Amino acid sequence: MRKVFQAELHQVGEELIEIAQLVTEAMEKANEAFTTADTELAQEVIAADARIDFLQRDLDERAIDILALQGPVASDLRMIVGALRMSASLERMGDLARHVAQLARMRFPQHVIPESLKGTFAEMAELDIAIARKLTGLLDTRDLKLANEINSHNARVNELHASVFKAIASPDWNASAPTTVDVSLASRYFERFADHGVSVARKVTYLVTGEWQPTAQGA
Amino acid sequence: MRKVFQAELHQVGEELIEIAQLVTEAMEKANEAFTTADTELAQEVIAADARIDFLQRDLDERAIDILALQGPVASDLRMIVGALRMSASLERMGDLARHVAQLARMRFPQHVIPESLKGTFAEMAELDIAIARKLTGLLDTRDLKLANEINSHNARVNELHASVFKAIASPDWNASAPTTVDVSLASRYFERFADHGVSVARKVTYLVTGEWQPTAQGA
Repeated sequence: MRKVFQAELHQVGEELIEIAQLVTEAMEKANEAFTTADTELAQEVIAADARIDFLQRDLDERAIDILALQGPVASDLRMIVGALRMSASLERMGDLARHVAQLARMRFPQHVIPESLKGTFAEMAELDIAIARKLTGLLDTRDLKLANEINSHNARVNELHASVFKAIASPDWNASAPTTVDVSLASRYFERFADHGVSVARKVTYLVTGEWQPTAQGA
Repeated sequence: MRKVFQAELHQVGEELIEIAQLVTEAMEKANEAFTTADTELAQEVIAADARIDFLQRDLDERAIDILALQGPVASDLRMIVGALRMSASLERMGDLARHVAQLARMRFPQHVIPESLKGTFAEMAELDIAIARKLTGLLDTRDLKLANEINSHNARVNELHASVFKAIASPDWNASAPTTVDVSLASRYFERFADHGVSVARKVTYLVTGEWQPTAQGA
C-alpha cells in the first residue's frame, strides 16, 4: 500500500514537471512569435495551451483521488495540497504565454513592440524563459539555489516592467494608442508570468524547508 | 467526532463568505475612490487588502488541518478542496480591487478615466460589485440562480471591456499615453475581477450539482 502511495505521489510530481516543461516551451515559442510576428507559431502556442489545461485538470483529479483514498498526513499532505496550488499557477503561466501569442496574432503582420522598446522586451522575455526553465529544474531537483535565481530574475523583470511604463509616460513616446495598449498589456503579461514563477518557487521552497517565506506584495 | 467535523466544515464555509463580503466592500470602495479621485479611500482599500490575505491563509491552514485530521472523503473532500481553490480566486479579486485603488491613488488629484469612458467604467464597476454581492449570496444560500446571474453580468463586462479597447483604437481617441495605459489596465482589472467571480461561481455550482460545466476559455 505504502509503495503504491509513493508511486502515486511521484506521479503527481512528474506531472508538475511535465506541465512546467510545456509552459517553458509555450513562452519560448510565444516570444519567438511575438518578436518575429510569426502568426503560425502564435497559433501553435494558442492551440497547445489546451494540453496544459488538460494536464492541470488531470493532475488535480489525481491529487484529489490521493487525498480521498490514501488520507495522507504531514509532509505528504502538504505536498499534495502544494501540487494543487502549483498546478493552478503553472496553468496561469500557460495562459499568459497564450496571451502573448494572441497579441502577436492580433497585430500580424505588424510587430507588437516599437523599435525603442525591443531590447527591453527581449530581456524580459529571456528572463521569463529562464524562470520557467529553472522552475522545471527546481521541481525536478529541489535545488533551492534555483529558487534564489528565480527571485533575482523576477526582481529584474519588475524593473524592466516599471521602465516600460516610464517610457510610455515620457514626452518622447509617440506610438499610437492601440500600440500603447499592446505594450502595456504585454509588459504586464511578462511581469505576471515571472510573478507566478516566484509563487511556485516559494511553494517548492516551503515543501523543502518547512518554512514559509514572507509574502511579497502581490503584483 | 462527526459533529466536530461538521462544525469545522461549516466554519470554512463561513470564512469563505466573510472573505467574499470583504472583497465586495473592497470593490465598492475602490470604485468610489476611482470615480471620485478620493485618495484616502483608496489608501483604505489598499490597507484592508492585508486582512483578506490573512483570512485566506487562515482558511487554507484550517482546510489543510481538516484534511490531515479528519481525512474527509467524497463530497466533504470536494468541498474542502473547492474551498482552497475558491479562497485563491477571492484573494485575487481582493488584489484586483486593490489595483483599482492604486490607480486612483497614483493619478490623484487627477481622475483616471477620461470623460468619454466614464459611463462605460461606471457600468463595469457596478457589474463587478453585483457579481461580488451575488457571490457572497451564492456561497451562503447555494441558490444557483445567482450563479446564472453572475454569468450574465460577466458576459456584459466582457462586452464593455472590448468596447474600451475599441474606443482606444478609434481615430477620435486623444488621451495621453499614460492615460491610455491606465484605461487599458483598469479595464483589464475589472474584466479579471468578473472572470474570477465566474470561476468561484462555477466551483459552487459543481459542489451543488456534482457536474462540471465546460470551461470557458480563460481570459
